[in-house]
Order: sequence, then structure tokens, then C-alpha cells
Amino acid sequence: MTNDEQQVAVVIGAGDATGGAIAQRFAREGYLVVATRRHQDALAPLVQKIEENGGKAIGLGCDARDEEAMCGLFSKIESEIGEVGVVVFNIGANVQFSITETTGRVYRKVWEMAAFAGFLAGREAAKVMLPRSRGTIIFTGATASMRGGAGFAAFSSAKFALRALAQSMARELGPKGIHVAHSIIDGAIDTAFIRDNFPDRYALKAQGGILDPDHIAEQYWRLHEQPRDCWTHELDLRPWMETF
Amino acid sequence: MTNDEQQVAVVIGAGDATGGAIAQRFAREGYLVVATRRHQDALAPLVQKIEENGGKAIGLGCDARDEEAMCGLFSKIESEIGEVGVVVFNIGANVQFSITETTGRVYRKVWEMAAFAGFLAGREAAKVMLPRSRGTIIFTGATASMRGGAGFAAFSSAKFALRALAQSMARELGPKGIHVAHSIIDGAIDTAFIRDNFPDRYALKAQGGILDPDHIAEQYWRLHEQPRDCWTHELDLRPWMETF
Amino acid sequence: MTNDEQQVAVVIGAGDATGGAIAQRFAREGYLVVATRRHQDALAPLVQKIEENGGKAIGLGCDARDEEAMCGLFSKIESEIGEVGVVVFNIGANVQFSITETTGRVYRKVWEMAAFAGFLAGREAAKVMLPRSRGTIIFTGATASMRGGAGFAAFSSAKFALRALAQSMARELGPKGIHVAHSIIDGAIDTAFIRDNFPDRYALKAQGGILDPDHIAEQYWRLHEQPRDCWTHELDLRPWMETF
Amino acid sequence: MTNDEQQVAVVIGAGDATGGAIAQRFAREGYLVVATRRHQDALAPLVQKIEENGGKAIGLGCDARDEEAMCGLFSKIESEIGEVGVVVFNIGANVQFSITETTGRVYRKVWEMAAFAGFLAGREAAKVMLPRSRGTIIFTGATASMRGGAGFAAFSSAKFALRALAQSMARELGPKGIHVAHSIIDGAIDTAFIRDNFPDRYALKAQGGILDPDHIAEQYWRLHEQPRDCWTHELDLRPWMETF
Repeated sequence: MTNDEQQVAVVIGAGDATGGAIAQRFAREGYLVVATRRHQDALAPLVQKIEENGGKAIGLGCDARDEEAMCGLFSKIESEIGEVGVVVFNIGANVQFSITETTGRVYRKVWEMAAFAGFLAGREAAKVMLPRSRGTIIFTGATASMRGGAGFAAFSSAKFALRALAQSMARELGPKGIHVAHSIIDGAIDTAFIRDNFPDRYALKAQGGILDPDHIAEQYWRLHEQPRDCWTHELDLRPWMETF
Repeated sequence: MTNDEQQVAVVIGAGDATGGAIAQRFAREGYLVVATRRHQDALAPLVQKIEENGGKAIGLGCDARDEEAMCGLFSKIESEIGEVGVVVFNIGANVQFSITETTGRVYRKVWEMAAFAGFLAGREAAKVMLPRSRGTIIFTGATASMRGGAGFAAFSSAKFALRALAQSMARELGPKGIHVAHSIIDGAIDTAFIRDNFPDRYALKAQGGILDPDHIAEQYWRLHEQPRDCWTHELDLRPWMETF
Repeated sequence: MTNDEQQVAVVIGAGDATGGAIAQRFAREGYLVVATRRHQDALAPLVQKIEENGGKAIGLGCDARDEEAMCGLFSKIESEIGEVGVVVFNIGANVQFSITETTGRVYRKVWEMAAFAGFLAGREAAKVMLPRSRGTIIFTGATASMRGGAGFAAFSSAKFALRALAQSMARELGPKGIHVAHSIIDGAIDTAFIRDNFPDRYALKAQGGILDPDHIAEQYWRLHEQPRDCWTHELDLRPWMETF
Repeated sequence: MTNDEQQVAVVIGAGDATGGAIAQRFAREGYLVVATRRHQDALAPLVQKIEENGGKAIGLGCDARDEEAMCGLFSKIESEIGEVGVVVFNIGANVQFSITETTGRVYRKVWEMAAFAGFLAGREAAKVMLPRSRGTIIFTGATASMRGGAGFAAFSSAKFALRALAQSMARELGPKGIHVAHSIIDGAIDTAFIRDNFPDRYALKAQGGILDPDHIAEQYWRLHEQPRDCWTHELDLRPWMETF
């Protein structure tokens, strides 16, 4: 039943902006995209859009923090769908609380979404890629991956953890043929969230002051395309007018 | 019953080497030391040693990953024992597994010990220190706090998270009078573990090739002593012959 | 005489490997390439190759450490050749000496080649690009840009300086529309030097263990192509099997 | 004539604030201080103050950028004064210019003062310390040692270079018994310059918002005191209220 030659791009956290754009970008190159979110229904518009453009996509509901579910996801893909060639982990969990107002529940939940789920995705990806000595795994980071900040104890802890995972995996898996990369998205992205909550920021869109998800997706594709003598591990992406 | 003038140094994870040495160092300066480990019994020798040297110490069994237990610990200290002036978080959790052999259970447990427990300790410390606008909080880091490595996905994820916590807290609490520091212990420490498992490494002790816990403790004391116009946030400590 | 519409790519240090490959890559996109080296004669083969492939190139001898010469170079290009759209600074100066054997002459010379010349190129580029609010400036870095090492006092001092220049310029010129990037070439490049002096290393070429100059050039082109809402400042490039 | 047992602390750039305070701190511990500045006359008040406090000091005029002068300085000290145990390099050169307004002369001069002179001091220190397998070399850094910024192309280039030197020397000389450290002074120091030019900043002095030179000096002394199993390479120092 499996099509051994069908290359699959798995996008964990295929939200409406970046994740969705990445899914479409890889679909455009002939990858069958497996897009996941917690609720399968939310994936229907993305799958439809990809198919309308002549691509192939499957939306699968999956709680990325659930080890059994993630193991099942990858084994289902490999046995029923095709060969996992690319995995993009794209779940964010941006919250802001003063340290004294950060509950244990929040600190844990942010880590589960942004770090533990990334670990599960990365490990399962490694398992199926290692026997083939090839594949690309990209983790999406943020400014908070590089520096902690007032109000960001929970978020930056999780994002630092994800970066450590990416670095450790790159050092372990690179010499085994697997390209592990970590992006640092340093700026606001053109999303409904920014539009609705930060209108001043959103107004910069006209002059390129916020990141276009399609442009991020293009950079992810290009990471994947790099020949193996010339790999990037960490890629920062920010609008020209962003202070850093 | 409280002695408002009794300054307390809380050492979370007062093990036989570094944590114990730190406890003794602060006790020597007149601090009443509250030393914690999971099992209260294991603290008896340390408490006895401090008392024999004329110091004051209390050993309290406490699972540092348990939010309720940690909240209770700090509230008990403040109401019954004295004023928390210093908190040292010193729980390590060094494990080494290839990424594919790292179970979800291990990845989570290492994080709970090295990062989540640190968050609980740091937050509770902040809560009692903020009204007084003073206090010192020190987190113990490691080489893996700075770089991920093959086999260290779980450990470095947790240690990066702890570093992010320390940075975030320093940026938030520094301007409120609280000194938050993060040490990077970059080398083997003179412990029973190193002696028993890495005899070649341990043999370097005679020439200062492994870290003496008392010397680490001295540096922690000196961090605490820094006047507030001249604070260090991140302190690396390594033997002279250590490659870095 | 000037053709205002002719976009020019200036490659400072257009050596036989990376610099030459970058020159060819930009020529392929329609840029008129101005390639410089100390001795103009050495540029003839590169110019010829570009022209044979239908591109436009001019080789100009120029000591990049000479302020007057560099000012003259840019003013000549802008008045006689075309509009400087891209500047790539690509002069290396890798030397290895123990600190006690590093002469003042060597320390200074390495800095003049790798840092001072980069400053002159970057500043002159900025001068002509600022009035147009556009342009790309790329500085070539190395492993030694990120960490000092035994034997590399002179080289890493110069490379750190160049990185500081790139960062400072990016923070100053980004919000003025100019894309400043810094690459980190972390590995051996396929050059005559590596072939002749490190044959074991060179033997890894067959399996992609050393960087192909054409692949580096492709990444530089892609940096230049990034839309301005999605710029990379620092790009690491290394072979899959490189330890880092 | 030499007193082999007289330990000497050499302070290169013994200005009125930090350098002078460091000189006094080491003199207080019994070190004979050799303090240098470009003009010997300017050192008289410092030497007098040290002597009034029962210490020993010699002021020597020396252009730290002059290789011959620096070689002569160290050879004179070792042959006529005592054994160089500590060298502190403390020459700053903070300037601020936009990139287009930075002249080649300024870029070079800042490097000569902040980096090249540091290299000469460090190398000469290494030469006399290596045969004894002991000694401490401390380089004074700044915020600009860690990140470039708009207007700081020249200053941060020089400071990055000095940091690369310190790192390279630490990695080379640490295993040979010499402690090389780099401080990062991240904030304003209590100097006449800050008092006269940044009165608002200076007004923070009362609450510890600017660094006290004596406190910096104390930290330098403590770096030197570290036992060799427990060395710090990089020490950040900043006021509690400083944003970072």
C-alpha cells in the first residue's frame, strides 16, 4: 500500500500562518504534506488549499505532547503514506507573565508544547531517517530562544530547551546524514493575532516591517535544499526595520 | 517565634559535594542554613557537620519538583525560621542517551529536576524577596547550559531552560534589588561519583584538574557578597587544565 | 557614460575559490561584477570565465587595506560603471602561531587584511547605498569569528573584529534599508590550498566533507535575494560531517 | 639588584578610575605595582597615594601601542624590579561615530589602543609567565565586547578583537598554568568623564546605579585569588539597575 517513492513533509503545528505556509511550500515541490494540529477539523482549509493548487496533503489531528500519539503518527506515515523526508516542528507557545505570576501549570504547559513536543517530533523523525541516512528536521525558534527577558521566564525556558535539542541533534545526527536546523524568527509575523492585538505593529506590514509567512516558508525550503557540504544549522530571520 | 533578624540561606539540592559545601560556607558566615534533599535522612550528616563547626542548619526533606511542597517550604521558613536572604538551586540531573534512546519519561524527568524545580525555587524565592528589595538567587549550571551535544539532548535542554530562567529573572528582578546569578561549572567536580566512575579523571585531583566543592562554594559566597553596583550574572568556573 | 541601470556586484578579494565562485554566481544573474585582488593580473582568468559564460566582469587591482584606493574604487565604479547593489568582502588571512611567537607585524597585518579592509569596504559600500536605501553587504567569516583558540590569537582577533563590524553595521543600516550579513564558513573549502596541504581532509571531498565554493556562492546569492521583511544577519555554513 | 621574591602587578592603562583602583587594590596585598600610562607625570598622584598607604608603586610612561616600548617595559620589570605575577590591561577607547563618519584613522587608532596594545601586553606577560607556569592576565572588556551596535563599529570591532585575544590566550595558556580572564564592564563607571558628561547617569551613583572603581578592583583581585581548579574566564559586572 505504501508508495516508497512518495516523499513526505510532516509539519507539526500547521497553523494558519507560518506552519500553513510551510506546508504549501513543500507541497508545491511535490512533497505529500502531512499537516498536524490538535484538532483535525482545523486543518481542512489548508488541505483544501493545497489540493486546489495541485498538491497532496493529509491533515491529521494529533496532540504533539502525547508520546504515544506521536509515535503512532510517524509509524502510520511510514507504513501507509510515504517516506518522511522533512519534519518541521512549528508549535509556539508565547506567553508573558511576571515570574511571581507564572504558575507551575503554565510553566509546564509551555514547555510541553514548545519543547517536549519538539523532542518527540525530533526523536521520531530521527528514528525513521537514520536508517536512510538522510532527511531534514527544522525547529522554529524565536527571539526568546536566544535571550531571556523580564516576563518571559516560561516562554524563553521552553525556547532555550528547544534550541538545545536542535543543537544536540545536529551534533549527533549531522555526521549521520541528517540535516537539523533551528530558525530564529525575530519579529512579528503577519498573523491574525498580530493584526487583532498589535494594530500599530501590523500597520508596518505595508513597508515589510513584519514577516510574511510565505517568505519564512521559502527560507525553510531553501534550508532543505542545501547540499550536504554546505548546511546551515541556525538561521535568523527578521524584518529590515526590526531592532535587535 | 520568628527571628526576623536571622538570615537564612536555602540550599535546594544539598548533596554530598557542591550543595553541602555551599551550605557550610554560608553557615560559616552566620546564615542559618535550610538544606533540602528529597530524603530528610540524607541531610543528617551535613546538619551535624555544620553544627559541630558552630553553625546553624536545618535539614528538610522536600521533593523540589512538587509545587505545593516548595510553596510550603518557603512559607514555613519565613514564618518559623527566619528571613530568606539567599537561595541556591543546585539540583543536577546529568544523563547521557542518544536521541533515539531518550524516552519521554527521561526527557521529562530531567527537565523536572533541573528546570521545573529551579523555576519553583526561583519563583518562591522571588516572592519572599521582592517585598524586601533584596536577596540573592544562584542557579548552578554546567557546560551543557551553553552548548548542546551528541547524547545530551535531555540534559542540555533542561540546563538551557534553567539558564533562560536565570536570565529572565535577572532582567526582571535585578532592577528590583534582587541579585540573580547563574554559574557554569565546566569540569568534573571532586565527588564520589567521579571517583568511582572516572578514576583517570579523578587522578587529576592532585594537580587541581577537578573542581573542589569548597572552592565552588567560596565563589558562590563571593557572588552573594558583591555590592549592588557591581553584580555578576554569569560566572564560569573550570579547572586550569580543562579544555573549553 | 554611466549606465544607471547596470547593477554592480563588487567582490573584494575575488580569489580562485570562494570569491571567484561568488563573482560568477552574481554575474549569472545579470550583475556586472567588479572583482578585486591586490594584483590585477590574477583576475584575468576569472573575468575571462565570466565573459565566456555571457556575463560581464571587470577586474581591478586594489590593495583593500589602502583607504585612498578603496575610496577611489567605489567612486570609480559609481561614476563609470554602474550602481553598486552588492558588496561581498571575502579577504581571509588565516595564520596560526602560538601567542609568544606572534609578532606585532603579523598581528597587525592579519587585522589589516581581515578587519580594516572589511571596514573600508563596508563603509564605502554604505556611503553609496544609503542615498538609495537599498543594497546588500556580505562579510565572510570563519569558525574563528565565533571562538578564539590556541594558536589563533591573531586570526580570531581579526575575525571577531569583522563580526563586530558586521553586527554594528546591520544594526545601523538595516533600518535604513541595507541588508548587512555575516557568514560563518565552518569547515574546509575545496581549494588548492586544502588539496595541497591537507590531503586527508581533501579526500573527504567525494562525500561532501568539504565546502564547494559554488555552493557557498549560491547561499550568498540567496541572502541577497531575501525580501526585506525576512532578512538573515548571520549564516553558518558547514559540511554535514564537520564537528562543531 | 632584582628582588626575586617581589611580586609585581603591572597595570597597563592606570587611569584615574578603574586602573588606579586596581593598582591600589593589588598594592594593598603587598604587590609592587608598576603602573603605566602614556605620560609618566600623570601617574604621580597614584604612586603617591599608594605609598601613603604603605604600598609600593612605580609609575612608568609607556605608549602601550609601541611594540618596542612594551617589550622593554616587561624586560625592565623582570630584570630590575621583580617577578611579574599579574598583568591587567585596562586601556579603553570608547568612541561613537556612524559608520559613514568613521575615518580609517579612528578605526585604526581605537584598535591600536584597545586591541593591539592588549595583544602586546598579553604576549609579553605570557613570555615572562610561561617559564614559571603561573601568573594572572586580566583584560578589561565592555558591553561592546559582546555585541556590536549602531555607532559602535570602531569600538566594538576593537573590543571584540580583545575578547578573541583573551579567549585564545586562555585556551592556550590555561593548561600551562596561566590564568587569563576577560571582564565585561556593563554599565557606567564612577569617573570624572561620566560626572561631567552624563550628569543624569551620574546622579544614580547614590543608589548604586554606576560602578564603583574600588568594587571592580575587588573583583579583579578575587579573580587573581581563585585557586587553579576553579578559574573564571569571563566575568560580567554591572549595576543592579542596568538594563541588559
